Amino acid sequence: MNTISKQFQRQYEMMVEWVNGTIDPLTDDEFKMEITPGKNHGVWLLGHLVTSDDDFSMFMGKGDVMFPEYYELFGQGSKLLTPGDYPPVSELKDAWSKVCEKNRKIYSELTDYELPEPHALVKDFEKDYFKTKERVIMAWHLHQLYHAGQLGIITAKSGKSKH
Amino acid sequence: MNTISKQFQRQYEMMVEWVNGTIDPLTDDEFKMEITPGKNHGVWLLGHLVTSDDDFSMFMGKGDVMFPEYYELFGQGSKLLTPGDYPPVSELKDAWSKVCEKNRKIYSELTDYELPEPHALVKDFEKDYFKTKERVIMAWHLHQLYHAGQLGIITAKSGKSKH
Repeated sequence: MNTISKQFQRQYEMMVEWVNGTIDPLTDDEFKMEITPGKNHGVWLLGHLVTSDDDFSMFMGKGDVMFPEYYELFGQGSKLLTPGDYPPVSELKDAWSKVCEKNRKIYSELTDYELPEPHALVKDFEKDYFKTKERVIMAWHLHQLYHAGQLGIITAKSGKSKH
Repeated sequence: MNTISKQFQRQYEMMVEWVNGTIDPLTDDEFKMEITPGKNHGVWLLGHLVTSDDDFSMFMGKGDVMFPEYYELFGQGSKLLTPGDYPPVSELKDAWSKVCEKNRKIYSELTDYELPEPHALVKDFEKDYFKTKERVIMAWHLHQLYHAGQLGIITAKSGKSKH
């Protein structure tokens, strides 16, 4: 049956494919490139993608994060360190694959009945920007492309993409 | 009735809201800032957002583009000129509002029956990356955030955002 949940599952795959298209061509050295001076570089952005996809399970009420130690490093508003002060790119890429697998399972079991429900971390529904699980899903997909576009600047600088 | 089309309509609004959140705070001078040297700056990105949302109607089989003259300037792979060689930011912002209004009408009339149809510009379905109207919709929303993220770098540099 074609449902909104199945559409979100397909859209999740398109998002992951697009993100992978920006991170797979980059070398460890290219990830060190600064994008917004003092605010982010490739390593921070990669870790930020991991934390964003990781906490999806908490917002959906489907379990804890896999990498709680990353939140202080890569969460929204975290202080930027030099690339060498973060876990190696290989570890972050592996973490990205693992959170994607976790979320694939969530999408495969998602039903349309859950979508209008308040997300699992809502405190004040009226004041909450995301409000429902549907809005969490949409915002998470858009958020990941927002930062993929920033990583895409490194891909373009390195001549590996026309973006 | 809650349909996939209605979900896409809501997602379109979230996309536009997010794009506006990155472009509205920027001054004309800030739009001149280079992002990927030799490949894009704020003015090109703004024009590129316009052309991308404008040709959505053609892919959906819902009419022509409103700003055909922009494709040579802002289309994928167009040669980068200096910011002063483009139409003024005020004109591009106005064009962005107009194509959003055009697309709001398309989303308000969209039905789920159209979604699995080949998009209107398909030549070879098997080789076409987008294939269906549903995939066009998903890709267009993600594409706009990809470039909004790049504009967000200017917003962050200017201290108007934490991104």
